[in-house]
Amino acid sequence: MLGMAEKIRVTVWNENRHEKTDQRVSKIYPTGIHGAIAGFLSEERELVTRTATLDEPEHGLSDSVLSATDVLVWWGHLAHGEVRDEVAAAVQSRVLQGMGLIVLHSAHLSKPFVRLLGTSCLLRWREAGEKERLWVVEPANPIVDGLGPFFEIPHEEMYGERFDIPVPEATVLISWFAGGNVFRSGCCFLRGKGRIFYFRPGHETFPTYHQKEVQRVIRNAVHWAVPGNGPAMHLGASEEPLEKI
Amino acid sequence: MLGMAEKIRVTVWNENRHEKTDQRVSKIYPTGIHGAIAGFLSEERELVTRTATLDEPEHGLSDSVLSATDVLVWWGHLAHGEVRDEVAAAVQSRVLQGMGLIVLHSAHLSKPFVRLLGTSCLLRWREAGEKERLWVVEPANPIVDGLGPFFEIPHEEMYGERFDIPVPEATVLISWFAGGNVFRSGCCFLRGKGRIFYFRPGHETFPTYHQKEVQRVIRNAVHWAVPGNGPAMHLGASEEPLEKI
Amino acid sequence: MLGMAEKIRVTVWNENRHEKTDQRVSKIYPTGIHGAIAGFLSEERELVTRTATLDEPEHGLSDSVLSATDVLVWWGHLAHGEVRDEVAAAVQSRVLQGMGLIVLHSAHLSKPFVRLLGTSCLLRWREAGEKERLWVVEPANPIVDGLGPFFEIPHEEMYGERFDIPVPEATVLISWFAGGNVFRSGCCFLRGKGRIFYFRPGHETFPTYHQKEVQRVIRNAVHWAVPGNGPAMHLGASEEPLEKI
Amino acid sequence: MLGMAEKIRVTVWNENRHEKTDQRVSKIYPTGIHGAIAGFLSEERELVTRTATLDEPEHGLSDSVLSATDVLVWWGHLAHGEVRDEVAAAVQSRVLQGMGLIVLHSAHLSKPFVRLLGTSCLLRWREAGEKERLWVVEPANPIVDGLGPFFEIPHEEMYGERFDIPVPEATVLISWFAGGNVFRSGCCFLRGKGRIFYFRPGHETFPTYHQKEVQRVIRNAVHWAVPGNGPAMHLGASEEPLEKI
Repeated sequence: MLGMAEKIRVTVWNENRHEKTDQRVSKIYPTGIHGAIAGFLSEERELVTRTATLDEPEHGLSDSVLSATDVLVWWGHLAHGEVRDEVAAAVQSRVLQGMGLIVLHSAHLSKPFVRLLGTSCLLRWREAGEKERLWVVEPANPIVDGLGPFFEIPHEEMYGERFDIPVPEATVLISWFAGGNVFRSGCCFLRGKGRIFYFRPGHETFPTYHQKEVQRVIRNAVHWAVPGNGPAMHLGASEEPLEKI
Repeated sequence: MLGMAEKIRVTVWNENRHEKTDQRVSKIYPTGIHGAIAGFLSEERELVTRTATLDEPEHGLSDSVLSATDVLVWWGHLAHGEVRDEVAAAVQSRVLQGMGLIVLHSAHLSKPFVRLLGTSCLLRWREAGEKERLWVVEPANPIVDGLGPFFEIPHEEMYGERFDIPVPEATVLISWFAGGNVFRSGCCFLRGKGRIFYFRPGHETFPTYHQKEVQRVIRNAVHWAVPGNGPAMHLGASEEPLEKI
Repeated sequence: MLGMAEKIRVTVWNENRHEKTDQRVSKIYPTGIHGAIAGFLSEERELVTRTATLDEPEHGLSDSVLSATDVLVWWGHLAHGEVRDEVAAAVQSRVLQGMGLIVLHSAHLSKPFVRLLGTSCLLRWREAGEKERLWVVEPANPIVDGLGPFFEIPHEEMYGERFDIPVPEATVLISWFAGGNVFRSGCCFLRGKGRIFYFRPGHETFPTYHQKEVQRVIRNAVHWAVPGNGPAMHLGASEEPLEKI
Repeated sequence: MLGMAEKIRVTVWNENRHEKTDQRVSKIYPTGIHGAIAGFLSEERELVTRTATLDEPEHGLSDSVLSATDVLVWWGHLAHGEVRDEVAAAVQSRVLQGMGLIVLHSAHLSKPFVRLLGTSCLLRWREAGEKERLWVVEPANPIVDGLGPFFEIPHEEMYGERFDIPVPEATVLISWFAGGNVFRSGCCFLRGKGRIFYFRPGHETFPTYHQKEVQRVIRNAVHWAVPGNGPAMHLGASEEPLEKI
């Protein structure tokens, strides 16, 4: 648990490629998807937010950046394959040591997420700009604080089950799509000492990250994912006092 | 695990009230909902099926019936309150000792289910005869053997989240409803040595239990819920060999 | 989530019978087990703590007390049967609406806990004053903040598996006992909007609640169990905007 | 579900290195650990068992072998690093498609297991030949069929918590060790359409796999892990009938 005076250090990572080539995207997100997310997170005084993108050296995720990050937010889509394996491995390792990870939308196929989950992470999808209604199924989970029983996004890409993930430690939101599909849209995972939250919405051609409920979920998830102060895991040869055998 | 020669003994319990007063129901289910379910279960040679109803003495669930039941199937709606507390307690106790329990549709408010789960088991609902599409979310679970990625029921009552149940041990089916709702429609619970499966469909005015996919799920669930041969739970003062302290 | 200025209101409930009849107990806990627990909780400025006991009117748990309680701590042993069913039902109902519940040691058989879990909640036990070593198995859980990989209690009553509870939403501590047993000693459950934590230690003839690590776990659990601000559960007939069917 | 006439095809994989260099091991397991395990599995008429070892071409796990394997049993220790990445990836892929995987003892660090789980899979350990007592904590799970409340192994290597794995879908056995440690010794995981069981015992210098209870657990686990007949996962662009949007 962080002390009162300490801030939560958030790094928002974005592939930042759609923004450079698709005017629809750059119009909706003039400072990039990372800029939009960092923007609304910065409104909270408890958070100190920075951004990082694929085309920066080391993808903007040097050891010094990662070691100064409490929670990493990740958006990617076109260029998962360009993320260097060393960086993906470093993110995985940091999560196991406690760093929080918020995985957004098409980042379900990002290297860090797939490595941490061990499954294909594939799903069904359809680009029809249809209505999505997200229902809260675990009202006791802090990630849904401040929400009503459901909220809607007027136009979104559809993601549908079967979503090939391990059973989440908590499934907090399930989406309904007008075209006939359902999806586990808010999923908590614990891996090592780290907390991971997958949140479905955020297709690049829709203004999803400008919507208040979406922002609320991401902000709640950042707070939920802050590293705790649980015991270090002295793994390996046992050193504790040995009882008489 | 039952030996090859042993049969699985199934008791199908039904409140059997709608059938007596509503011609729509008796037309669809001339032998009652219990008769329809017992009917398709009886087609399996491994199963020996009997029925029991609310208005029989002891609701048809005497000690001798319960002790000769491997899996109990339960449908109720109008008259949950008329089920005697002793019978509900006996069912709960048998489940904790290993008897399987398949809870159908409006039996989400039946006394045995509510006692075993400990929550209100309330949900949203709407009678509009709308389309339901059930998606498989856990393809490794034996209860979905033989299904495709989803199946549809043309007209059903809507049940929607938040369904106030404890987190299921497995959520195998999620329903989409045309009117805008989602629901965890196939839920596995373990309680004591017993296995419980809640399955959503089956409003009395629709021919849902005549549909092949619905029958398949119920048959799979019966097989899944058969009592195992795990250790008896010698609870109380400890009797195992004591290590030197 | 509570605002900064708001305090967490904790009620510590104790049967308070051993303290009246057994000098060993009253010597260790001169103000009662409830007094000891309320004492160390009161050291935190964020908490406002009161106590309640079995022999007070309504067991000290009137509607006005319960409605002014964010987290209820419960210790009982000899007199579970004397707790009135209406009070047990009121506690259950409050938990489903969001009140946190911390269940200590022999309260595994208390009426509120058994009603909320639905199983027998029985276990093995042995009074031999043997050593207990509690291992952290979920280091990402906030309830183990500040602990090392394990801690020991020099002399305790043994509780051993099989502990007849539903699968916990999180198992954070597992105990080793010198005499040869293991036990899931720190278990999180979600029920309705409420969070429940069962914590094993605390036999009345040992000074367990004076031990720093035990106090730390209870304090962490109180913070974890504070009601969130998730959606109210409008259960019943559906009122949300109906999509065209 | 396999038809009556069909056999379950099991492949027992072993690194088979200790057996070549350590006489203590070859004395206990003259046909190798794989030979011992294949031996007791072959006593069941429903199983057809073959073996494969590290030093065979493609480690004995060619595509044709894997595609003819329903359940793969894996033992490794010294030479995890020598397992080729392509073979580890092929095993991972087969599991996601439904092949069962039984992971024994020191194979907690085998490449297929670590890839499928995504965590470090590290643990504490001590070679002191101490007594292990394994307690059943989920008596409803078919993997403990036929066991008593616990069983003992007279001398084993200690493995202790924190075991750095994701929360298992079921924890069926917890070990007590004389020297003061506990361990989740029987853990079920679902990944894709595949079922994985990790079972702790089996240090190479002890005759653990000759013990009846250990054999019983492995046999039960093989039956549990047989691929089901759930829906194929048509992942990718959605092809199902689109509801009117």
